[in-house]
Amino acid sequence: MRPPARAEGTRARAASGEGGGPLVGVIMGSTSDWETMGHAVEVLERFGVPHEKRVVSAHRTPEEMARYAAEAEGRGLVVIIAGAGGAAHLPGMVAAQTLVPVLGVPVESRALKGMDSLLSIAQMPGGVPVGTLAIGKAGATNAALLAVAILATTRPDLREGLRRFREEQARRVREATLG
Amino acid sequence: MRPPARAEGTRARAASGEGGGPLVGVIMGSTSDWETMGHAVEVLERFGVPHEKRVVSAHRTPEEMARYAAEAEGRGLVVIIAGAGGAAHLPGMVAAQTLVPVLGVPVESRALKGMDSLLSIAQMPGGVPVGTLAIGKAGATNAALLAVAILATTRPDLREGLRRFREEQARRVREATLG
Amino acid sequence: MRPPARAEGTRARAASGEGGGPLVGVIMGSTSDWETMGHAVEVLERFGVPHEKRVVSAHRTPEEMARYAAEAEGRGLVVIIAGAGGAAHLPGMVAAQTLVPVLGVPVESRALKGMDSLLSIAQMPGGVPVGTLAIGKAGATNAALLAVAILATTRPDLREGLRRFREEQARRVREATLG
Amino acid sequence: MRPPARAEGTRARAASGEGGGPLVGVIMGSTSDWETMGHAVEVLERFGVPHEKRVVSAHRTPEEMARYAAEAEGRGLVVIIAGAGGAAHLPGMVAAQTLVPVLGVPVESRALKGMDSLLSIAQMPGGVPVGTLAIGKAGATNAALLAVAILATTRPDLREGLRRFREEQARRVREATLG
Amino acid sequence: MRPPARAEGTRARAASGEGGGPLVGVIMGSTSDWETMGHAVEVLERFGVPHEKRVVSAHRTPEEMARYAAEAEGRGLVVIIAGAGGAAHLPGMVAAQTLVPVLGVPVESRALKGMDSLLSIAQMPGGVPVGTLAIGKAGATNAALLAVAILATTRPDLREGLRRFREEQARRVREATLG
Amino acid sequence: MRPPARAEGTRARAASGEGGGPLVGVIMGSTSDWETMGHAVEVLERFGVPHEKRVVSAHRTPEEMARYAAEAEGRGLVVIIAGAGGAAHLPGMVAAQTLVPVLGVPVESRALKGMDSLLSIAQMPGGVPVGTLAIGKAGATNAALLAVAILATTRPDLREGLRRFREEQARRVREATLG
Amino acid sequence: MRPPARAEGTRARAASGEGGGPLVGVIMGSTSDWETMGHAVEVLERFGVPHEKRVVSAHRTPEEMARYAAEAEGRGLVVIIAGAGGAAHLPGMVAAQTLVPVLGVPVESRALKGMDSLLSIAQMPGGVPVGTLAIGKAGATNAALLAVAILATTRPDLREGLRRFREEQARRVREATLG
Amino acid sequence: MRPPARAEGTRARAASGEGGGPLVGVIMGSTSDWETMGHAVEVLERFGVPHEKRVVSAHRTPEEMARYAAEAEGRGLVVIIAGAGGAAHLPGMVAAQTLVPVLGVPVESRALKGMDSLLSIAQMPGGVPVGTLAIGKAGATNAALLAVAILATTRPDLREGLRRFREEQARRVREATLG
Repeated sequence: MRPPARAEGTRARAASGEGGGPLVGVIMGSTSDWETMGHAVEVLERFGVPHEKRVVSAHRTPEEMARYAAEAEGRGLVVIIAGAGGAAHLPGMVAAQTLVPVLGVPVESRALKGMDSLLSIAQMPGGVPVGTLAIGKAGATNAALLAVAILATTRPDLREGLRRFREEQARRVREATLG
Repeated sequence: MRPPARAEGTRARAASGEGGGPLVGVIMGSTSDWETMGHAVEVLERFGVPHEKRVVSAHRTPEEMARYAAEAEGRGLVVIIAGAGGAAHLPGMVAAQTLVPVLGVPVESRALKGMDSLLSIAQMPGGVPVGTLAIGKAGATNAALLAVAILATTRPDLREGLRRFREEQARRVREATLG
Repeated sequence: MRPPARAEGTRARAASGEGGGPLVGVIMGSTSDWETMGHAVEVLERFGVPHEKRVVSAHRTPEEMARYAAEAEGRGLVVIIAGAGGAAHLPGMVAAQTLVPVLGVPVESRALKGMDSLLSIAQMPGGVPVGTLAIGKAGATNAALLAVAILATTRPDLREGLRRFREEQARRVREATLG
Repeated sequence: MRPPARAEGTRARAASGEGGGPLVGVIMGSTSDWETMGHAVEVLERFGVPHEKRVVSAHRTPEEMARYAAEAEGRGLVVIIAGAGGAAHLPGMVAAQTLVPVLGVPVESRALKGMDSLLSIAQMPGGVPVGTLAIGKAGATNAALLAVAILATTRPDLREGLRRFREEQARRVREATLG
Repeated sequence: MRPPARAEGTRARAASGEGGGPLVGVIMGSTSDWETMGHAVEVLERFGVPHEKRVVSAHRTPEEMARYAAEAEGRGLVVIIAGAGGAAHLPGMVAAQTLVPVLGVPVESRALKGMDSLLSIAQMPGGVPVGTLAIGKAGATNAALLAVAILATTRPDLREGLRRFREEQARRVREATLG
Repeated sequence: MRPPARAEGTRARAASGEGGGPLVGVIMGSTSDWETMGHAVEVLERFGVPHEKRVVSAHRTPEEMARYAAEAEGRGLVVIIAGAGGAAHLPGMVAAQTLVPVLGVPVESRALKGMDSLLSIAQMPGGVPVGTLAIGKAGATNAALLAVAILATTRPDLREGLRRFREEQARRVREATLG
Repeated sequence: MRPPARAEGTRARAASGEGGGPLVGVIMGSTSDWETMGHAVEVLERFGVPHEKRVVSAHRTPEEMARYAAEAEGRGLVVIIAGAGGAAHLPGMVAAQTLVPVLGVPVESRALKGMDSLLSIAQMPGGVPVGTLAIGKAGATNAALLAVAILATTRPDLREGLRRFREEQARRVREATLG
Repeated sequence: MRPPARAEGTRARAASGEGGGPLVGVIMGSTSDWETMGHAVEVLERFGVPHEKRVVSAHRTPEEMARYAAEAEGRGLVVIIAGAGGAAHLPGMVAAQTLVPVLGVPVESRALKGMDSLLSIAQMPGGVPVGTLAIGKAGATNAALLAVAILATTRPDLREGLRRFREEQARRVREATLG
């Protein structure tokens, strides 16, 4: 949990909107989660937020996960989005090993349809928070939007981007026709 | 959703750690939620984060809720923590009316023990995110910790505070004795 | 919540069965809900009840929703049928902003099959009622039938229509053959 | 289902607000449901709505239930509120035997906390609607408020009463203090 | 509930295994339940048990249901098998109106997969029993087998039939091959 | 599964209502289940049905359970009532080893409130039926009432007893007063 | 439960890794479980662990099941893996009749998606343990891996095999590419 | 995952039953879990199995947890029993970092009564097994009994101990009296 000095510089860049390393890390427990988590990446791309995506498994590569979490702050990540299904430990375990805010996406599991994923992510004990989103695609989309909103607390351009996004989606609702 | 110019100044203060108006708004649907949500306030106080607390009911005072959400950005709030139980609409409805990141705390409901609250908060459709925490006290504590972590992305003092908090809670685990 | 005087006239028309503006508003959070909510409209058409249908999203168009709710009484709506899925806030939030009776239809959600929708709609706190129907098509059909029954408390012609509807459906059961 | 002519007269009284027989019937499957259903009666009394209350068991007195349902329309009942727990058949079975709108209140059951009651009431098949409220006290309160709202579609005095009720409960929220 | 004298004679026939009217009534709430309930009829046919099958809807034909239940004893039915889905009231309501043992089959519902059906059938209050079987095909098969077992308490031939059925199914397990 | 000849004689007695060995066996997995299962015994006593009660554990005394099941038919038992909680295997395993009809009572478990017990008992595969009753006291009462109803198919005196029981419980409902 | 002397010899072989009878028994309640349980066998084959596979039904062949359990220790089985669905009694009932460690695999059931299987296997009362794995394929795979790990407590070659397996699966995660 | 050579010696001792370091590690996420996990320790003491107990939190002390898991094999632990509640990651994360068999005990959580704990522990993905026991005390007891059974695969004295334990518990059932 000791971030190298470089981190402050990266966060400064984050605040200013200048280029540089990724600000948001999108990780997932398995390649099969990509179908869901790809929606998070899509949103980040739309908002032009520098990001990275990676398979990091809490259960199959715990050391890599620990390293990813430990280095996140120093590497300048401002938000981590972690998606996993079933006994979904990735978001909580990453959160346990970094101070960077972690958002969790419960991936829809085969048998229990993501109810197990949701409870495994949301029901964290007091002390180590994970901001949990909805099961599946909506959750992946919203994790990215929430990451953008967090970045936007210091980046007016992103806040404007969010405002336009909201207006655009409201407009689509207003123009919707039925039947 | 048109924040007055004052907001940027407040966020600048937020980034610098200087005093001023509240940075985190803690709202809840009913006075009976205070038993849970008080734990969020306690954490914010511990970290010296300026905050406010208020009862704002999505169902009984929808206009006040809309106004609260609409003014949040302009008033300089950086994070909103919203707690509610049962058909818990407060977090999602506030999120629908502000760009400020919203964290939701499912309050334990009488009959269904917060399962209804959890689903009503977490299962938001794509487009309007709520970062959901655990049911009850742990969730309230963690919502505040996540708010601090979000603020800490631009405030090294809060990040240090979080680091000490984590070290302190690790120390307590290490020193725990059984039986 | 101050309906213009026109409302009383519309309700008088409602009671008399004469033509005029819509008596039942059928709203839904998304165009994808139409597959379900179309069954409500079908029933209203069968009974010749003036109605309107519209996409109104609690989360994506909260202002339109508020306006829809606030104007409902004045526009002469006697019942509002609101369908939504997942964290389904539309029925409860509309109910919070009008005195017109609101009926809620939990649309079947992808992962949790409408259990989240059902709890988000039914578990309203004391003070703001939503009459909740079944998940999915049956619920949409029944919301319309209940709306007709409510209108029928002052319109003998609709009550007769309902009586024939019941007799017809009983007849179909009686004539059913198996195997 | 053949209401005597008297019914139309009673409904006319209902519409005009004049005295007479009960307009709302509050029934429940067992005396033990009274602890919950009493909250519905309390609301009706507050609004001055003529009502009656009775134990009518779908399972222990099916004939009385059938008679109650069959006579409801003729006796001038405008809404029936039915509460039951567990395999809660009372609301749906009454609804099956009357055209009067039926509102169902899932009483909290001992083992499953009303989840069984909720599903048994809400998940009616297409053709026979029951407007379902929340489990327990909130549901009982709201069933009565919804009944008042239904009556209010033709009684401006009740609509005003509801408006004051809403204002009063909003005021209580606004004046709430925490901690 | 006053069975005509003919009933005793029929039951005597039941005990002796002689021909006559149906001993088991298989009823279901809708033609769509036949896909499930047909498995019950298949078992009864296999055991040569006189039976009848019929659509009887608690909600759409409550009077026919009441009559069916009231006449069951007099018509010599020894067991009634009732299948229904969703808010499945048929088994419990028939049981409420006859002394003939009633077995309930929860039909798999679309959204909640029969969990609503199961709870609506099994969670009967003390005083009116329904012997509930599994959701879907297995439950329909087993309802018929249990009906046969009940008949077999006085018919050694059926008990022998059951013994052979069990031996046959055990033999199939023993001879099963994998992979 | 080869009942000694004595069994037929016992069943003849059962049919005639004469004294003799127990007709109903009430078994349970643990002494702690007695608080629930005692209600079954109470009903059997009220109806004067010869019965026995015993702790027989599927998991702790599987051989005794197998012997109990295997001897049930020969000992003249006409119905077995088995209560168990959690992973409740007793009813299904007894049913697997006897042709005597088995009724299962899900005892309310500590953590999951009997939902585990209910599913473990009701969800039997096709081929081996268990007639499942409600969770807890209601289920125990009803298991005994269903056992009596099964015996009553050949014993008019018991059927009369059931009729009086039903009339008595209907009378109590009719005489119930509220508030 | 009295294993013949031969057992000790077999276990010695187990410890040494020499050839001989099966060390792991893979049983399942039905041939339809093979689609799931085949994954357990595949893992055992990969690790070169002598094993057997068999359909043994708790409900349809309780005597064979009892015999299988009783002979397991004497036949030198070191671990039993039992898979079943619905009211899944096989793992618990085998565990009740042997001292050999039993691992249970909840097979995904049609209606309730294995939630019933999971609870029926995991919720065993104190005194008779079953080590329960996940619902479906993952559970079958893991049951075999856990069996190998148990064998590996005395077989360094298997422990090395597991180590390589873990390294291989970590390598696959590391090399995964997205998008 | 590189155990020092000492481990083989310890396991040899394990096999022979001689004294030495702990063979079973009982860990839990919090001191509040001791009320549950103490029952595991009690069983190990009864069987004279050398063990250790410790609070190791996946979320609050992830490094200690990783170290505990990594050193377990080398320190001669043969089985690890891990108890945790809510989003219970401890068992799965320990299992991810050791080849020693891990048994998981879902501790009963406040709001969801251990259903979240159960799913978080049992629903592990293929590749990293955790043998899951029941929620709460029964699970803790059984985890220890299963650990003993695993040790007993190479220790006849423990197998005899287990046999006596089973006989004793069967005897207590046989001698149980009711009412």
